[in-house]
Amino acid sequence: TPRQRPNSVICMKSNSWANIESDIQTHLKKSIPIRAPEDVFEPMHYLTFAAPRTTAPALCIAACEVVGGNGDQAMAAAAAIHLVHAAAYAHENLPLTDRRRPKPPIQHKFNPNIELLTGDGIVPYGFELLAKSMDSNNSDRILRVIIEITQAAGSKGIIDGQFRELDVIDSEINMGLIEYVCKKKEGELNACGAACGAILGGGSEEEIGKLRKFGLYAGMIQGLVHGVGKNREEIQELARKLRYLAMEELKSLKNRKIDTISSLLETDLCGV
Amino acid sequence: TPRQRPNSVICMKSNSWANIESDIQTHLKKSIPIRAPEDVFEPMHYLTFAAPRTTAPALCIAACEVVGGNGDQAMAAAAAIHLVHAAAYAHENLPLTDRRRPKPPIQHKFNPNIELLTGDGIVPYGFELLAKSMDSNNSDRILRVIIEITQAAGSKGIIDGQFRELDVIDSEINMGLIEYVCKKKEGELNACGAACGAILGGGSEEEIGKLRKFGLYAGMIQGLVHGVGKNREEIQELARKLRYLAMEELKSLKNRKIDTISSLLETDLCGV
Repeated sequence: TPRQRPNSVICMKSNSWANIESDIQTHLKKSIPIRAPEDVFEPMHYLTFAAPRTTAPALCIAACEVVGGNGDQAMAAAAAIHLVHAAAYAHENLPLTDRRRPKPPIQHKFNPNIELLTGDGIVPYGFELLAKSMDSNNSDRILRVIIEITQAAGSKGIIDGQFRELDVIDSEINMGLIEYVCKKKEGELNACGAACGAILGGGSEEEIGKLRKFGLYAGMIQGLVHGVGKNREEIQELARKLRYLAMEELKSLKNRKIDTISSLLETDLCGV
Repeated sequence: TPRQRPNSVICMKSNSWANIESDIQTHLKKSIPIRAPEDVFEPMHYLTFAAPRTTAPALCIAACEVVGGNGDQAMAAAAAIHLVHAAAYAHENLPLTDRRRPKPPIQHKFNPNIELLTGDGIVPYGFELLAKSMDSNNSDRILRVIIEITQAAGSKGIIDGQFRELDVIDSEINMGLIEYVCKKKEGELNACGAACGAILGGGSEEEIGKLRKFGLYAGMIQGLVHGVGKNREEIQELARKLRYLAMEELKSLKNRKIDTISSLLETDLCGV
């Protein structure tokens, strides 16, 4: 699902969702200051914020709160999730000698070698922030979250999606393939965000599982409604089906404040 | 320090050092099997073993044993260190549209996009293996080791070295710059390897510090004696000085079996 939306197109109705997004931005800006050596940190700062928004980091905070945790407990994980997303986006748009450029060409502020190396630096930095967020009694949860993020970011996650995405562009509309790419790119990153938040907030395994599924469906819908073939009836139909499934997961989270998290389905999916 | 040595040129005199290297290879082969999807795992397997050897992973195991630990406790960290090195090497040789190719061109078995994505997948996989190596009572040590590796691999470590290295190629022999690049590329990765091993083996802060310094010096020497200007007298002189400093660090590790670790200075530095 090549992204066709500009940055920040996601329309926010919910103040609390917008507040979460804003807290994450503030945290990232503090975590990645422009400091010496500037030729390293300026591109890092730039590429961190050049990537289009993903809801996965905010979902991480919101899921933490849904299971009764404090959003701050999930802030480092939310930052790390944004960073793997930003690095993936930077490398996706790298001008390689052999890569077709099927997307609207993006502006490159830095040369390819800098963009490559900066992307390479952003990923470990995310894991560093996360590992440093340990305190005296959350080490096991942090390690579990690191595993979640490595899997979502790795060869069986986003990277698999980026790899298969080239086939989407080459082929006629192939629903199975589009669904697979949306699952690997937007789906599993949002699933990871929700699961990580629930883990850090001390959710039960059942809650973690339900929020993970909610994130998967919500992320896939975003991929579908902004990607290739977004106006086609079969894409709209699949998005509606996933929205129904996402709401079912939320319904079964009894006695939990799901307002913020459910607003994701209302606001981001204006088209469905 | 553009690497000019072929794979496996390091001459091993010490059986135990060779045994450690062989154990790590075996562990990596088991950890990265060629399995479905093959178009993802075959390049991952290939690029993992295509990188020239670095002594940092073996130093991790050896340092663990020096402080009284069992080498197995450090195996996941050694694997992760090899993986960040392999990914850095893959990206260093990526045919970007704008990058000068100062080195002897390497054989590319896969196309640039595959090599890019594979490198991107290898790094999180290393952290995943490491996080999964937690047991009931080593979480804090694993997290500390993750921080060590993210820092060595990140924008202030190898990537800084890769960035500055371009200036080495452009300029006349500039000793300050060569020393800096060797420190960032080979030095800090080996320092990280030794420190991680010592942390996982339960070493004291003093032991961790001494082994870290030993690794730094030993790694820098490797960078110097295999890199740009390796035959020049001032490079040889600096290498000899670092060798002296490395041996001083070992001397002060009293009552520890330092045979294996000190063999690194004898064998790898044949030229010094």
